[in-house]
Amino acid sequence: MAMGSLWSYISCDCICLLSSLLYGSSVSDTVDRFFGENHFSTYLSHVVIHRTSKLRSVVDKAKKLYKQVKHKKQDKKKPMRFFSRKDTPEGHYESVLQELEQDIRMGQAEVSAPGKEVRAAFVSFKSRYGAATALHMPQSINPTYWLTEPAPEPHDVHWPFFSASFMQKWLAKILVVFACLLLTILFLVPVVLVQGLTNLPALEFMFPFLTLILSMKVVSQIITGYLPSLILQTSLKVVPPIMEFLSSIQGHICHSDIQKSACNKVIWFTIWNVFFATVFSGSAFYKLSVILDPKEIPVKLAVAVPAQASFFIAYVVTTGWTDTLTELFRVVPFMVSYIKRSFEPSDDNEFVVPPMRYHRDTPRVLFFGLLGITYFFLAPLILPFILLYFCLAYIIYRNQFMNVYAPKFDTGGMFWPMIHYTMIFSLVLMQAIAIGLFALKKMELATYLLVPLPVCTLLFNEFCRKRFMPIFTAYPAEVLTKRDWEDRNDPRMPEFYNN
Amino acid sequence: MAMGSLWSYISCDCICLLSSLLYGSSVSDTVDRFFGENHFSTYLSHVVIHRTSKLRSVVDKAKKLYKQVKHKKQDKKKPMRFFSRKDTPEGHYESVLQELEQDIRMGQAEVSAPGKEVRAAFVSFKSRYGAATALHMPQSINPTYWLTEPAPEPHDVHWPFFSASFMQKWLAKILVVFACLLLTILFLVPVVLVQGLTNLPALEFMFPFLTLILSMKVVSQIITGYLPSLILQTSLKVVPPIMEFLSSIQGHICHSDIQKSACNKVIWFTIWNVFFATVFSGSAFYKLSVILDPKEIPVKLAVAVPAQASFFIAYVVTTGWTDTLTELFRVVPFMVSYIKRSFEPSDDNEFVVPPMRYHRDTPRVLFFGLLGITYFFLAPLILPFILLYFCLAYIIYRNQFMNVYAPKFDTGGMFWPMIHYTMIFSLVLMQAIAIGLFALKKMELATYLLVPLPVCTLLFNEFCRKRFMPIFTAYPAEVLTKRDWEDRNDPRMPEFYNN
Repeated sequence: MAMGSLWSYISCDCICLLSSLLYGSSVSDTVDRFFGENHFSTYLSHVVIHRTSKLRSVVDKAKKLYKQVKHKKQDKKKPMRFFSRKDTPEGHYESVLQELEQDIRMGQAEVSAPGKEVRAAFVSFKSRYGAATALHMPQSINPTYWLTEPAPEPHDVHWPFFSASFMQKWLAKILVVFACLLLTILFLVPVVLVQGLTNLPALEFMFPFLTLILSMKVVSQIITGYLPSLILQTSLKVVPPIMEFLSSIQGHICHSDIQKSACNKVIWFTIWNVFFATVFSGSAFYKLSVILDPKEIPVKLAVAVPAQASFFIAYVVTTGWTDTLTELFRVVPFMVSYIKRSFEPSDDNEFVVPPMRYHRDTPRVLFFGLLGITYFFLAPLILPFILLYFCLAYIIYRNQFMNVYAPKFDTGGMFWPMIHYTMIFSLVLMQAIAIGLFALKKMELATYLLVPLPVCTLLFNEFCRKRFMPIFTAYPAEVLTKRDWEDRNDPRMPEFYNN
Repeated sequence: MAMGSLWSYISCDCICLLSSLLYGSSVSDTVDRFFGENHFSTYLSHVVIHRTSKLRSVVDKAKKLYKQVKHKKQDKKKPMRFFSRKDTPEGHYESVLQELEQDIRMGQAEVSAPGKEVRAAFVSFKSRYGAATALHMPQSINPTYWLTEPAPEPHDVHWPFFSASFMQKWLAKILVVFACLLLTILFLVPVVLVQGLTNLPALEFMFPFLTLILSMKVVSQIITGYLPSLILQTSLKVVPPIMEFLSSIQGHICHSDIQKSACNKVIWFTIWNVFFATVFSGSAFYKLSVILDPKEIPVKLAVAVPAQASFFIAYVVTTGWTDTLTELFRVVPFMVSYIKRSFEPSDDNEFVVPPMRYHRDTPRVLFFGLLGITYFFLAPLILPFILLYFCLAYIIYRNQFMNVYAPKFDTGGMFWPMIHYTMIFSLVLMQAIAIGLFALKKMELATYLLVPLPVCTLLFNEFCRKRFMPIFTAYPAEVLTKRDWEDRNDPRMPEFYNN
C-alpha cells in the first residue's frame, strides 16, 4: 500500500501529545502500542520529538562564526564601511571551531539517549483517511491524556509547546485572555489623550502656557485635525506584535495558528479600542457603564456615532491612505534593514523574502469595512474616501502579494471565517445604530419595523455557520478518499472522482 | 470478520440522511456507492427506510379489531361492566378482517416499490471503530448533503423526521425556539395572578364583594399561604408535555434525544418562570428591564430574593413534599387508568409498565437544589424543609426506579451535563446575590473580594467542560477497539484490555 507524502497538504500525519506514560518506559513504546492497538488497520509509523535546544544553540553559534569568517574574507576586498570592527587573528577561529565540533558531537550523543524525548510524536498513517480518523476520534477515556492535532507543514512548526500538557495549555490560554483584557484597558490611555487633543479649550485650561502657540491657526489645525490620528496610529502599531507574542505563548504548535489567533485578537482590539473607545469618548468607567446597560446601547450609539463622523473621515485619510502607501514603499522595513546592515555587516546575497503579516493588515482592512458600513447612512461623505482607500488597497496589496511577499505557509482560506464574522458584526452594529436613531427621532413605527432586521442577520449568520463552517474545520471523507486514490495511482479509481 | 450485534449499545450502525440523490436513481444505490467508495475498508451493508404509514395504519386497525373480538369473547364470561356496548354480529368481523388482509397485501406491494423509499438509511459497518469513523468524519463537501447520526436503539426510534432535510430541521429548530419564548411570556399570566393573591388588600380593592369572605381568617390564610403555590403548580403541570411536544417536532430521530431536549427546556423554563418571575414580581416589562440592565442585577436580586423567602418555604412544603408523595402513590395515573378502563374495556393482562418521565421529574429536583443553594444564607430556615424533601425524594424515587418504572431507553448518563450546568448556574446566581447583598449593605471590601468567586466558578465549569464533556459526546477509540476485540472473541486480544 503506497503511503501519501509525509508532509503533504492534507497530511497523512497527525501529532499526538500525551500527558503521562502508560505502557512501556519510553514515549516511543507508548505511542507505538497505543496506535498499533487502537488504530491497527491504518497506523504506519511514528517519530518521537526530541528536545535539541542545546544542540541547536551550538549549531547556531557555528553558523554565526562561519558568517563572520566569510565576511572577514570579503572585507579584505572592499575595505570601506560605515563602522569597522577590530581584527581577530585567524588562529582564534580555528580553535573555537574545534571546540564547537566537540560540543555538537556531545549534544548528538545526549539527544539519542531516551531521557531527552519530549512527550509528543509525529504519527504517520497508511492513508489520509486513516489520519483523519485518528484526528477526529477521541482517543482515550480521559480526553486530556491523548491529544491529536493535524501535523503542520515542516517550516510552519512552532516547537516550544510540544512538551506542554493539557493543563499547561489551558492555563496559558486563560492567562492570555486576562492579558488581552488588561491590554485593552491600558490602551484607553492614548485614546483618552487623543480625545483630549480634539478639545482645545480644555487643553488650554490645563496647560495655560500653551495658549500662545494654540492661538496660531496652523498649529491648532494640526493638533485637532492630524495629531489625534497620528497618536492613535502610532500606538496601534504596537498592538499586532504584542498580540502575536500573546498568541505564541497560548499553546499553538504552528505559526499559522498563531497568526490566525493574533489576527482575531487584533480585529476585536481594533473594533473595541478604536471604534467604541473613540465613539464613547470619556472615562473608562463611562464605557463600562455602556456595556453594562444593553437596553440603552442603540440610543447611545445613535447619539455618539454621528458625532465622530469628521474624526473617522480624517482617520480614513490619515491612517488608511498613508498606511497603504507606506505599505507600497515599505518605508519602515527599508530603514530598519539599512540601519541594521550598517551596524552588523552581513552577506549581501543573503536576502530573505519577507512573509505577509496577516495579523497586521487584515484587521486594518476589516476596520475600514466596518467604518464604511456603519457610517454610510450617517455621514455619506465618508464613502468616497473609503472607496478610494479600497481601490488603493486592492492595487497595492495585489502587487505586494505577487511581487514582494513570499507565502510562509498556506492559509488554506482559514482567515475567511474571521472576515465573515466581522462583516456580520458590522451589519448588526449598523442596524442597532439605525434602530437607536429612529428611536431618538421618535419614529416608533420605523423603530419596531427595524427590529426583525438584526434578528434576520443573525439567523443568516447561523445558517452560514452550519452550512459553510464545517468546510473550514476538517476535510470531508469524499475529498480524503479521492486524494488517497490519486496517491495510489490506481487505474481502478472510480470515474466520478475525475470531475 | 464477525460483526457486532446490529442494535448493540455502542452500535456498529449509523443513520445517514441525505437531502438529494447523486449517483443512481434510487436511495439504496446512492448510499451503497457513497459508503462503498468513501468508507470501503469498513462499510458492510445498509437498509433503506421505507415510508409505511399506510401499512402501519392498516395493521393498527387489524390489531384493534383483534382486541375487540377477544374482549367480546371474555365479555360473555363476565357480563357486569359499568358501560356496556352494542353487540355486533360475528359475521361482520369476518368480512372486515378479509378487507384488511387485502389492504395489507396491497400496502406491502406498494412499500417494496422503489418510489416509497425515504432519503435515509441504516448503514452497518464491519466494526464499531468503522462506524465511529463514519460518524465523526464530515462526509461530503457540502455538509448539509450527508448527515450521519448514531443509530438509536430499536424501540427508541422516532420515525417522523427521517425524511426531513437539513433545512427543514434547521427551520423547525428556529420555530421551536420562538415557540418556547412565546410560551415563557404567556406563562407570566398565572404567575402574575399568583402574585396578586399574596397581596390581599389589592384583591379586596379589585373585587369589593369578596371583602366579607376575605375577612375570615381561615380563608385569608388559605388564599395567601396555599392558593398561590397550588395555582403555580397546576399550571406547571402543563409545561412538560408541551415542551416534549415542541422537542418532538424539532427534528430528533430518537425518543431519548427528545426527552433530553425537553428536559433542558423545562429546566430553564422552571428557573426563569418560577424563580425569576416570582422574585421580580411585577409586570412583564419590569422583568425585561431587569435583564436589559445587567449591572443592576445583583443589587436587584439582593432586594427581591430575600423578600420571597416565605413563599419559597411554603413552595417546598406544598409542591415538593406533596409531589414526591403523589409520585409514590401515582394518584393521577391511577385515576386516569381507572376512568379509561371503565369507558374502554381492554384485556386485564395487557398491563404496560410505565416509563420514567425524566423531563418532568429531573427539572423539579434540580429546582429545589437551586432554591437550597440560593436561600441557604438568606433564609436558613428553608434548609430543614429542603433536606426533608431530598430525603423523601431519595427514598421514593429509589423505590420507583426499582419497582415501578421500566426503563424505555438507556440514558447512558446523558442527563448528567444538564445537572452539572444547572448546579453551576445555581452557584453563580447565589454568588451574584451575595455580591448584591454586600453592595446593598455598603460593605465595599467584602463586595470586591467576592467578585473573583463567580469567575473561579465559571473557570471550574470551563475546566469540567474540557475534561469531562467529550466523554458524553462520543466513545473514544480505546473503548471501541476493546469492544471490537471482545466481539471477535479473538484469543490474541491484548492483555491490558482485561483490566
